[in-house]
Amino acid sequence: MDLKQYVSEVENWPKEGVSFKDITTIMDNGPAYKYATDQIVEYAAAKDVDIVVGPEARGFIIGCPVAYSMGIGFAPVRKKGKLPREVLEFEYDLEYGTNVLTMHKDAIKPGQRVLITDDLLATGGTIMATIKLIEAMGGIVVGIAFLIELEYLNGMELLDGYDTISLIKYES
Amino acid sequence: MDLKQYVSEVENWPKEGVSFKDITTIMDNGPAYKYATDQIVEYAAAKDVDIVVGPEARGFIIGCPVAYSMGIGFAPVRKKGKLPREVLEFEYDLEYGTNVLTMHKDAIKPGQRVLITDDLLATGGTIMATIKLIEAMGGIVVGIAFLIELEYLNGMELLDGYDTISLIKYES
Repeated sequence: MDLKQYVSEVENWPKEGVSFKDITTIMDNGPAYKYATDQIVEYAAAKDVDIVVGPEARGFIIGCPVAYSMGIGFAPVRKKGKLPREVLEFEYDLEYGTNVLTMHKDAIKPGQRVLITDDLLATGGTIMATIKLIEAMGGIVVGIAFLIELEYLNGMELLDGYDTISLIKYES
Repeated sequence: MDLKQYVSEVENWPKEGVSFKDITTIMDNGPAYKYATDQIVEYAAAKDVDIVVGPEARGFIIGCPVAYSMGIGFAPVRKKGKLPREVLEFEYDLEYGTNVLTMHKDAIKPGQRVLITDDLLATGGTIMATIKLIEAMGGIVVGIAFLIELEYLNGMELLDGYDTISLIKYES
């Protein structure tokens, strides 16, 4: 199945000059959503994964069915103020200003093998923050799966040394 | 399985006097997450559902694996400004001020049979907005599944006439 044909490209959103990759047209199509999920499950199958982690909110759409299919749990990465119990925080730079991501302090146990999922790899800031949070808790990132990779933004360079997969690639 | 034992009750969050029901401790437990998902799939199995709809972000955590397990699609309900294509909006009152929820205009086709999922039923405002959006597109709400129901807030009264289920109930 060619998943790219199910992506809706939205020109000049959220700002002029950006071609946004809308994945809702993969998700609302049963066979495409199942195929994408199963590709990630297959990628992760031999990695002895204990738990899936994904950043809000589109990372949930990708990671939750993967966790369900593998019979393991899912732990969310959320913006500051959204998780009710004690959290670890990680702050990182955006084009303008900074962003803070959090995970519950007990979400990952030391030595747990973690699969990270997200909808899209751009410059990689969100994923690096996610990796830092997991590793601060003693987790081992054994795989990172993206539905879409924007190759021209070179986010994979930041993830050098990690095992990764992206199902749909845009070269330009 | 008694799912309630996996819920973390967080006192005085997000404000004084509220006992918040934290579902992340269901989700990060593989067997509990699978059991909860399968209970909703079983509830929906005979309803000939075409698509699952859930409000961000915890509605994604519940609805996405249900959609995957049923082999059907998932359409998100999001806050204003989050969906990139043409949307329908529905505004509703909160305790202080108002909230606006949106869905892509083409997310539901007329006559489609829709299962709504969310983590928690409180007063029902979010779910009523979700129903209004689906019905405005010609969708038929054939079931509404909650992980948790706060019975003392009487949200079910608002949903009178709809087919509903809640897996975990709090009487007070």
